[in-house]
Amino acid sequence: MRGLSTATQAFRESPTRKIDALRERLRREGRDIIVLSTGQPSIPPPPEVRALLAKELVESRGMELFGYTPSQGIAELREAVSEDLKRLGGVDVDPDNIVIVNGGQEGMFATIMSIINPGDEVILLDPTYFGYKPILEYFGAVVKRLRLSIDDGFKIDIDKLSELVTHRTKALVLVDPDNPTGNVIDRDTARAIADLARERDFWVISDEAYRTLVYEGEHTYIYKYAPEHVISINTFSKDPGMPGWRLGFVYGPRDVMGRIKLAAEEMTYCPPIIAQRLVTMYLRSEVRIKHMNYIINEYRSRRDVAMEAVSKYLPRAKFVRPRGSMFMFLDLSSYGVKDAERFSQYLLENYSVAVIPGSYFSEVYTGAIRISFVAESRDRLVEGIRRIGEALNNYKEG
Amino acid sequence: MRGLSTATQAFRESPTRKIDALRERLRREGRDIIVLSTGQPSIPPPPEVRALLAKELVESRGMELFGYTPSQGIAELREAVSEDLKRLGGVDVDPDNIVIVNGGQEGMFATIMSIINPGDEVILLDPTYFGYKPILEYFGAVVKRLRLSIDDGFKIDIDKLSELVTHRTKALVLVDPDNPTGNVIDRDTARAIADLARERDFWVISDEAYRTLVYEGEHTYIYKYAPEHVISINTFSKDPGMPGWRLGFVYGPRDVMGRIKLAAEEMTYCPPIIAQRLVTMYLRSEVRIKHMNYIINEYRSRRDVAMEAVSKYLPRAKFVRPRGSMFMFLDLSSYGVKDAERFSQYLLENYSVAVIPGSYFSEVYTGAIRISFVAESRDRLVEGIRRIGEALNNYKEG
Repeated sequence: MRGLSTATQAFRESPTRKIDALRERLRREGRDIIVLSTGQPSIPPPPEVRALLAKELVESRGMELFGYTPSQGIAELREAVSEDLKRLGGVDVDPDNIVIVNGGQEGMFATIMSIINPGDEVILLDPTYFGYKPILEYFGAVVKRLRLSIDDGFKIDIDKLSELVTHRTKALVLVDPDNPTGNVIDRDTARAIADLARERDFWVISDEAYRTLVYEGEHTYIYKYAPEHVISINTFSKDPGMPGWRLGFVYGPRDVMGRIKLAAEEMTYCPPIIAQRLVTMYLRSEVRIKHMNYIINEYRSRRDVAMEAVSKYLPRAKFVRPRGSMFMFLDLSSYGVKDAERFSQYLLENYSVAVIPGSYFSEVYTGAIRISFVAESRDRLVEGIRRIGEALNNYKEG
Repeated sequence: MRGLSTATQAFRESPTRKIDALRERLRREGRDIIVLSTGQPSIPPPPEVRALLAKELVESRGMELFGYTPSQGIAELREAVSEDLKRLGGVDVDPDNIVIVNGGQEGMFATIMSIINPGDEVILLDPTYFGYKPILEYFGAVVKRLRLSIDDGFKIDIDKLSELVTHRTKALVLVDPDNPTGNVIDRDTARAIADLARERDFWVISDEAYRTLVYEGEHTYIYKYAPEHVISINTFSKDPGMPGWRLGFVYGPRDVMGRIKLAAEEMTYCPPIIAQRLVTMYLRSEVRIKHMNYIINEYRSRRDVAMEAVSKYLPRAKFVRPRGSMFMFLDLSSYGVKDAERFSQYLLENYSVAVIPGSYFSEVYTGAIRISFVAESRDRLVEGIRRIGEALNNYKEG
């Protein structure tokens, strides 16, 4: 009998994809949409490195630039990543503890596939990035949520976290710097989480996609404090800025990395060589630090522009000043928004501004929206926020 | 409690990877290895198309060449694939029935994930490509094998196939043109399989990675005969020759393709844009047919060289003249080889020639080896086969 598998029935299009589809329809109708919904950066990799790769592309004769690579990625890139982690975070990661993957998404999927047995409990923060829950549930994990409060700056309370841990807790997922709140976990909290993970023996899946995009303070590499308990998931999508090239990396203790490598090998055989070449050249070039600082300064200034516009046009919106990543999480409940999914649709259809509703990140902040402050130019960013204010004035729920 | 998942425990390194590792060790010891083990082609994509892409890489300003694409791939590529299938095979596939994936491997994984429930029966030929079994077993399928005989030219007997089909049969996997035998399924057989699939209502997973690499006769696009029952898995790794760029495509009926799209979205979010751009330009350029014919002629002539060398140096080896793909499957049992895994290791260590033992493809042909006739130059190919003959003269089993 033909037919489809039961376990994959629960898969739904990602929220960003849903908005993309609606956006695309409106765009075809000739509408100019201000896109504050995407997780895509707006600065591509530096021209110097692109020129080097273009030269190789034209001049290479054999299969060097076109052939399969080892499943865990080429040695040069794993070494370059190890050096980069040491230089930026002072963290020691052996290249053999690093597996290069086809984007952070494959890192997430292969990691969860490699550790979860049905019935395992996994703690997710609330709010948190929406990508983890469907994969965890697909593999049979029981998701428990630790509710964070916007009034405490989304700070993680270690006692409350500890209360959620049982003998069935397999993992805790952190996204740091955070998507959607822009929050950055401070060093003491990271250390306390690491201590708890060692003491109660659970994995910390630490999603550090935005590790270099920090505008105030600094990113804590939690692996340093619990190298046997942390699996760190990373991407090159945001820095150097090539989400469509599908390249990321995962690091952690040797045994789990061996399993993740085999899982990724079954899923995609190996990561793309062309992206591996570009990133190896990038990380080892003199442009690396310059380009990173350029991105940080540019995105920080757009964040400041966004915060100013929010104060002006959305004075009653509650938010925590984003110290990292690319997002602001705006609680609009004081404007009477309870169902932000409905508001987002209203906003897109009537004001041509795309945002992501809070319900995709949170069971609590259903009257919030996530906006990106990096996807559009300053002018359009401000105009988008102005229109959100205008929309709120005219929006009636229920 | 930390720890790894039970279901992924069975994953082992792919056989090609195992040989790669041993080969790499010997190479580091300064040994020059003749590599007849790999599934990698030796002709890269045409220079004209590479030059176009290099230009875009240098000149693009925004994120067009670096951003995310739709999960199912860019519309232009899906249209180009649809046109290519029509032109080469006379088969009508709507672009909306095509999903672009991160290589054929992702196509295999996402397809199996999308259709298999634990306990479903799946029929694999024997011999067949080793990539399917571990994924099928991971998803809980019960694998049944249809034994083919080298004496019948590995022809599929429809009555025997029919006897294996039960009410639990979810799918039959075909690899056509075949890896490892180089066999090409004739039109009547394809049609009879399609009839059986419709009648008994099971999926045909048709792996057509080598669809354009046919040296005699022609490839049958089985989808034509059972469009509601065939899921076709394809890759751009072999033609235009970019396995390391990770790009392939799957087509089939709309409902299963929707599910495969969602599965691939969870696994890797989207296929790589840079590879999608290159292949779109390739398929739509005037070089497409020229390049394909160049590959075919070149590989056909190497096949002829290989067959001649086999007749000369391995006169007692049994094989079926490969009419497609990149491989010969040599039964060495008349030389006393029963455990080809042992022989392959002996061959590599003492004669510096890498091949893949038949036991990875077959439960029956454990005294056979697979050699690629495209991976090395003509001279080295002949020398490799000569050394296999020499090794056989000195090899003693047991």
